[in-house]
Amino acid sequence: MTVFTAEVVVTLRPVINDPQGLSVRAGLRLLGFDGVVSARVGKFIELVVEAEDEAAARAMVTRMCERLLCNPVIEDWRIDSLRALEAAT
Amino acid sequence: MTVFTAEVVVTLRPVINDPQGLSVRAGLRLLGFDGVVSARVGKFIELVVEAEDEAAARAMVTRMCERLLCNPVIEDWRIDSLRALEAAT
Repeated sequence: MTVFTAEVVVTLRPVINDPQGLSVRAGLRLLGFDGVVSARVGKFIELVVEAEDEAAARAMVTRMCERLLCNPVIEDWRIDSLRALEAAT
Repeated sequence: MTVFTAEVVVTLRPVINDPQGLSVRAGLRLLGFDGVVSARVGKFIELVVEAEDEAAARAMVTRMCERLLCNPVIEDWRIDSLRALEAAT
């Protein structure tokens, strides 16, 4: 078994209203950042998983996203990076 | 002025306790994902900003992180990607 780290990004779908992002944009403008056009806030999930190989790790993380990490009605997800941790095996 | 999209990742520092991450790990294990070792949850912020050039956009996003998006006591941040939007200028 090898230990992998995976970085998963979960974002609201473009058509979904994002009050948290609107608050961030309003806050930035109040601070004088007039150049900000929009802000949207999603989740960034760092996972450490044990798997046989990279394909198995990717398949496991994909199932995790589909079953728990992402609400497919309002969210999209992607695996940003997946790499073996050399130190731990 | 050019329009840029920036992706900012804000994560809890490694020594900071992450109850949301612990809940995610517990939930994944309950679902049968025995291979999950740890999970940590951060924020993913998509920004659209107007700036003269890429250096100015990067400087602006850096100041946004330092002034509003990140709490430096408990969080780290990084700019994951910064690119010009061809369509809008």
